[in-house]
Amino acid sequence: MSKKTGKEIRINAFVTFAPSHLSPGLWSHPQDKSLDYNTLEFWSNLARVAEQGKYDGLFWADGISTYDVYGGSHDAGIRGALQFPRLDPLLLVAAMAQVTEHLGFAVTSSVTYEPPYLFARRMSTLDQLTRGRVGWNIVTSFGDSGSKALGLGPSKPHDLRYEIADDYLDVVYKLWEGSWENDAVKRDRATKTFADPSKVHVIRHEGPHYQIEGVHFSEPTPQRTPLLYQAGSSGRGKDFAARHAECVFVSAPSKNIIRASVADTRQRAAQLGRNPEDILFFMLLTVIVGRTEAEAKAKLEDYRRYVSPEGALALFSRWSGVDLAGRDVNEPLQYAKSEGMQSTIEGFTVADPDRVWTIGELAQHNAIGGKGPVLVGTPEQVADIMQEWMDETDIDGFNLSYTLLPQSHIDFVELVVPELQKRGVYKKEYRAGTLREKLYGAGPRLPDTHPAAAFRRGADAAADALAAAAEIQ
Amino acid sequence: MSKKTGKEIRINAFVTFAPSHLSPGLWSHPQDKSLDYNTLEFWSNLARVAEQGKYDGLFWADGISTYDVYGGSHDAGIRGALQFPRLDPLLLVAAMAQVTEHLGFAVTSSVTYEPPYLFARRMSTLDQLTRGRVGWNIVTSFGDSGSKALGLGPSKPHDLRYEIADDYLDVVYKLWEGSWENDAVKRDRATKTFADPSKVHVIRHEGPHYQIEGVHFSEPTPQRTPLLYQAGSSGRGKDFAARHAECVFVSAPSKNIIRASVADTRQRAAQLGRNPEDILFFMLLTVIVGRTEAEAKAKLEDYRRYVSPEGALALFSRWSGVDLAGRDVNEPLQYAKSEGMQSTIEGFTVADPDRVWTIGELAQHNAIGGKGPVLVGTPEQVADIMQEWMDETDIDGFNLSYTLLPQSHIDFVELVVPELQKRGVYKKEYRAGTLREKLYGAGPRLPDTHPAAAFRRGADAAADALAAAAEIQ
Repeated sequence: MSKKTGKEIRINAFVTFAPSHLSPGLWSHPQDKSLDYNTLEFWSNLARVAEQGKYDGLFWADGISTYDVYGGSHDAGIRGALQFPRLDPLLLVAAMAQVTEHLGFAVTSSVTYEPPYLFARRMSTLDQLTRGRVGWNIVTSFGDSGSKALGLGPSKPHDLRYEIADDYLDVVYKLWEGSWENDAVKRDRATKTFADPSKVHVIRHEGPHYQIEGVHFSEPTPQRTPLLYQAGSSGRGKDFAARHAECVFVSAPSKNIIRASVADTRQRAAQLGRNPEDILFFMLLTVIVGRTEAEAKAKLEDYRRYVSPEGALALFSRWSGVDLAGRDVNEPLQYAKSEGMQSTIEGFTVADPDRVWTIGELAQHNAIGGKGPVLVGTPEQVADIMQEWMDETDIDGFNLSYTLLPQSHIDFVELVVPELQKRGVYKKEYRAGTLREKLYGAGPRLPDTHPAAAFRRGADAAADALAAAAEIQ
Repeated sequence: MSKKTGKEIRINAFVTFAPSHLSPGLWSHPQDKSLDYNTLEFWSNLARVAEQGKYDGLFWADGISTYDVYGGSHDAGIRGALQFPRLDPLLLVAAMAQVTEHLGFAVTSSVTYEPPYLFARRMSTLDQLTRGRVGWNIVTSFGDSGSKALGLGPSKPHDLRYEIADDYLDVVYKLWEGSWENDAVKRDRATKTFADPSKVHVIRHEGPHYQIEGVHFSEPTPQRTPLLYQAGSSGRGKDFAARHAECVFVSAPSKNIIRASVADTRQRAAQLGRNPEDILFFMLLTVIVGRTEAEAKAKLEDYRRYVSPEGALALFSRWSGVDLAGRDVNEPLQYAKSEGMQSTIEGFTVADPDRVWTIGELAQHNAIGGKGPVLVGTPEQVADIMQEWMDETDIDGFNLSYTLLPQSHIDFVELVVPELQKRGVYKKEYRAGTLREKLYGAGPRLPDTHPAAAFRRGADAAADALAAAAEIQ
C-alpha cells in the first residue's frame, strides 16, 4: 500500500478527434460510440459525463501525420482508423463550453504548423468564449507526412524543432501578455472610448525564426496565456517543459521511469528559477473497472476480442520507428539500455527491462491504452493503485484514456470517482474561476516566476511584481 | 414600383466578431449589446433570432489589419473599436450550430494568411459538426498591418494575390473533392475496416505557390467543399468570383453600380462554362424599420446621436487609402471617374456621381451601414425597396448589416420578414439538407460545371458525370 500523502488527484479525459486513439480496433465493439466522433452530440455527451465526474478537463491529442511506418505505407492506419481521420479540436471547444460550466479544455496545437500570430488570436478567442477554461498542449510535430502535407519537406531535426518552439513561444507570450496593459480597455459609452490606444502596444519580434510586428487582435482574456501543457521526454524536451509548462503529460508503464522523469523535470524548473511544485504532472492511464474483480476481468476479456493486432503493431511501429510488418509474431525483440532508469525495446519503453517480449506479446500489450498502465479491478483496487502511483512517482494526476467511448468514462465516474472522493483525495466541487485558478487555487494568470511574465507592460507588470512580492512574504 | 418578378429573397445577417462593424460608435447606444461580442450568449442569441427569421445564414467578415490610415496611426481604430479587437469566427461556428437546426454559417478566411492544408481540415471539421451548414468567404487580404503581423512584409500586389488564391483553391479542392472517393468509408465493425485505403488518395500538388503532398485528414463531409462566397469587385476579382464563387457579396449605394457588377460577373461565369444563374448575389443593406414612418425616422435620429464621426472617417480613410485626418469638414472631395458605371470620390463609390460631397457629409453618410444603402421606413416601404433592388439589379438577396445588435435583427424579423412572406418572396420554412441544398434546391455538392469537380476521383467522378448528364436531359 501507498504512504497515502493525500495529494488531490487531477483527472483529464484523454482523447483525440478521431474514431480511435490508443486502443486500436475497439471502435468495432458494439457498445462503443466512437464512430460518432464527427458529431457535436458525441462530444457534448462526453463533456457532460466529464463534468459530472468533476474532471479537470478534456485533453485532445492531435497531429496530422499518418501511421505510415508499418509496412512502409499508411494502409493499416487508414483501414483501422488509427487516429485517422482526425479533425481540428479547437473547433469543438466553444460548443463544449456551451454545455458545461467548469470543465477545462486542453487542445493540442503544433508550433511547427500554425503561424503564431493567428494561433495567438485563436487561443484568445477560446479563452474569451470559455471564460478562461482553455489550455494549450504545445507540440513540435515529428511526423514526416504531416510536414510534407504542409509543403515543408521532411520533418526538421528534434533539437531545431525545440529552438523554433522557444522562438514561437516568445512571440505568443508577447502578444498575450505584453500587447494590452491591464487597464487598456475602457468600454466607456459616454466618451465612445473602447480602449486607450496608448496602452495597446505593437509587438515587435525579431527572432531567429519569426519576425512579427503588430498589436494583438484580442483584448485581454481571463487567463491571457492559456494554461500551458507539454509532454517533453527527451533532455531537450524536458528543458522546454521546465521553462514553459504548467502541466506536463507523461506516459510510461513503469513507476521508476515516471518517478525519474518527474524529478528530472522538476529539478530543471527549479534551476530556471521556477517553483518546481508549480508544474503538475498528468500520467497516461487506462482503467477497466467493475463492481467485482470478476466483472472487471470479464470486461477486459470482452474488450480483447475487439482489439486490432495490426493496429497495435502499426501504432508501435510509428512510435518506435521500427517497421514490424511481416515479422514472425514469436520473434523476440531486441533490448537497448538507454539513459537513467529508462529501458527500451527497439525504442519502446516497457515496465520490466529484464523481460523478453515477442512481437505478438507486444501487439497484445500495445492494443489497449498505449504506453500507459492499464488498471483492471474494483473501484477500491483501482483507487489503491492510483494512489500508489501518485505517492511513489510524485505525479499530480492522470490523463485518463479509454477502451470504449463514452462507456469507460461513465464507468469511471460512477464507480471510481465516488471511491476517490470517499478517501478525500478527489474534489467534490469545482473551485470558482478559470482553469488556472481551479488547478492552482491562485490567480487567473501565470505566476511572476514564469518566463512569459517578463513580457508584461506598464502598470500590469508593476502590479504583477507587487503581487509576486506579497506572495513571497 | 418594381416589376415584381417574385424571385425569392435571401438574407444573411452580416456581422464581424468585434464590438463594431459598419456603424461606428453605435456600440455606445444604450440598447446595443455589442460590448458582449466576446461571449457565447451574445452570438447564440443572435443565431436564434436569425433562425427564427428564416435567414439563410450568419456571415462573418474578418481581417487582421487595423484601421491605420486615418492620421497615419491605428489610434482612432483602437479608441473606437473599429472592427477591433476582432476574434476568429471559425471558433464560433460549432457552438452556433448547437443552438440552431437550419441556419448557415459563412466564415471569412484569408488565402494570404492561412496554410491551405490545415485550413481544409478546419472547414471539413466545421462541415461535419454543422452537418453541412458551413460556407467560406474567400478573401485575399490587402492590409499591410496584417501582412506585417504575420511576418510577411508589406501586402502583395493585387493581381499576384489572386494568382496565389487560384493556386490555393486548387489545393483545397483536391483535398476536399479528390482525396477520398465516395465509397471509401466502410465503417465495418465486422472486419474492423473503417476505410478502404485504395480509395483514399494522396494529393500531390506542385503549384507556383504551394507544394503539397498528403491525404486529406477528414473523411467526406456533407458538402465536401463548403459553400463558396467571394466579393471580388475589380476585373481580376470578378474573374476569380466567376470561376469559383457560388455566392457573391456586393456593396455599393447605387443600383446602376450593382446592376453592372452583377451582369459583368454573370457574363464572366458563362464564358467559363458555368451557369450564370448558379451564382447568387447578396447585397450589403442596412434597414431601420418602424411600425410607422415616423417611428422609423425617430430611430434614425436617435441612432445618429451615437455615431462616431471620427470612426466614420477612419473607416473611409482605410477603404479609400486617403487620410482625411485634420482636414476641414467643409472641404469638398475630389471626383475621379473610373471604368464603366462606377464613379468614385477619392476611391469611394457613391450613389450620385454628380453630387459634390464635403468631408463632413461623407462622415455622416459613412457612419451607418458602410458602403451599402440604408432603408428607413415601415415594413411595407422597406419591402417595396428591397423588391426594387432585387428586380432592377438582378441580385438574389441581402447581407443585412445592423445599427444595433441584436435589436436591428429583432426588428427586421418581427416586422419585415412577415411582410416579405405575405408577398410570397420569402421562405416560410427552410428546405431540408445542407446549406447548398437549401440555397439551390439541388444536391449537397458543387455542380459538375464547377472547376472543383474536375478533381473528383474514381466512381465519385463517374457518378457525378452521370448525374450531370441526367440533369442536362
